[in-house]
Amino acid sequence: MFDILHRVGIQAPPLDVYGAITRRDALAAWWTDDTRDQAGDVIHFQFGERGFFDMKVLERVPGSRVVWEVVDGPTEWIGTRVVWDLQAEGDGTTIRFRHQGWREQVDFMHHCSTKWATFLMSLKAMLETGKGRPFPGDVLISIDWD
Amino acid sequence: MFDILHRVGIQAPPLDVYGAITRRDALAAWWTDDTRDQAGDVIHFQFGERGFFDMKVLERVPGSRVVWEVVDGPTEWIGTRVVWDLQAEGDGTTIRFRHQGWREQVDFMHHCSTKWATFLMSLKAMLETGKGRPFPGDVLISIDWD
Repeated sequence: MFDILHRVGIQAPPLDVYGAITRRDALAAWWTDDTRDQAGDVIHFQFGERGFFDMKVLERVPGSRVVWEVVDGPTEWIGTRVVWDLQAEGDGTTIRFRHQGWREQVDFMHHCSTKWATFLMSLKAMLETGKGRPFPGDVLISIDWD
Repeated sequence: MFDILHRVGIQAPPLDVYGAITRRDALAAWWTDDTRDQAGDVIHFQFGERGFFDMKVLERVPGSRVVWEVVDGPTEWIGTRVVWDLQAEGDGTTIRFRHQGWREQVDFMHHCSTKWATFLMSLKAMLETGKGRPFPGDVLISIDWD
């Protein structure tokens, strides 16, 4: 099994970061503007005609940890998990991100690794400046990145 | 062993991308402005007081592939390899990037994965707009990222 890892520091307290990865309106403000609730604790993330991800929320610990399991979407993603670990650091939060359980290091995994980084930047920008860049406007933003 | 993967499309021909990851002046324009030649096909990348990486060039196939081996730098990096595979696609180039051979999924690996993404953006910006954001000015830039 293979994992995509990332780490990013955000100038916002852990509970705010937690809110940004659990509230539908906040998720829509940094990942895809077409984010919907589904039955059974599943969140549907639609990316126009490119595709979608259905994430079942497996864990939700305020200010600390969120775990999603991919229950529908691209074949390569189904059964993988997305793990968000949040840690207070100074006035901010360090996110340790892991998209774990890829069965092969396919080309799509290269792509998703880079795209996750850009969406993490969008999340950071949303929390620090009030404005993210969710799909379909997911272009880069001019901010510090540490 | 664990790998960091990324993929990015750049609107520049493969030979230009190849030049940007082999010429010292070009490397200095997107990764760190303090890039130096050393004896024995080694390139020294210095990041102020934060540290450095010494990369031995193992392979160099014009327009197609470059492989570096880390011969000095942070303990976690020594012995790992950075592999650049370039493929012509339309008028541009797809880079498939792999930093392979991490012995453990340490916290530093999370950080480096995200930083590689931001430096790949810097490389893309340098080739597409003429201006990268190498260390110490490695902040994000406003460009499309596909």
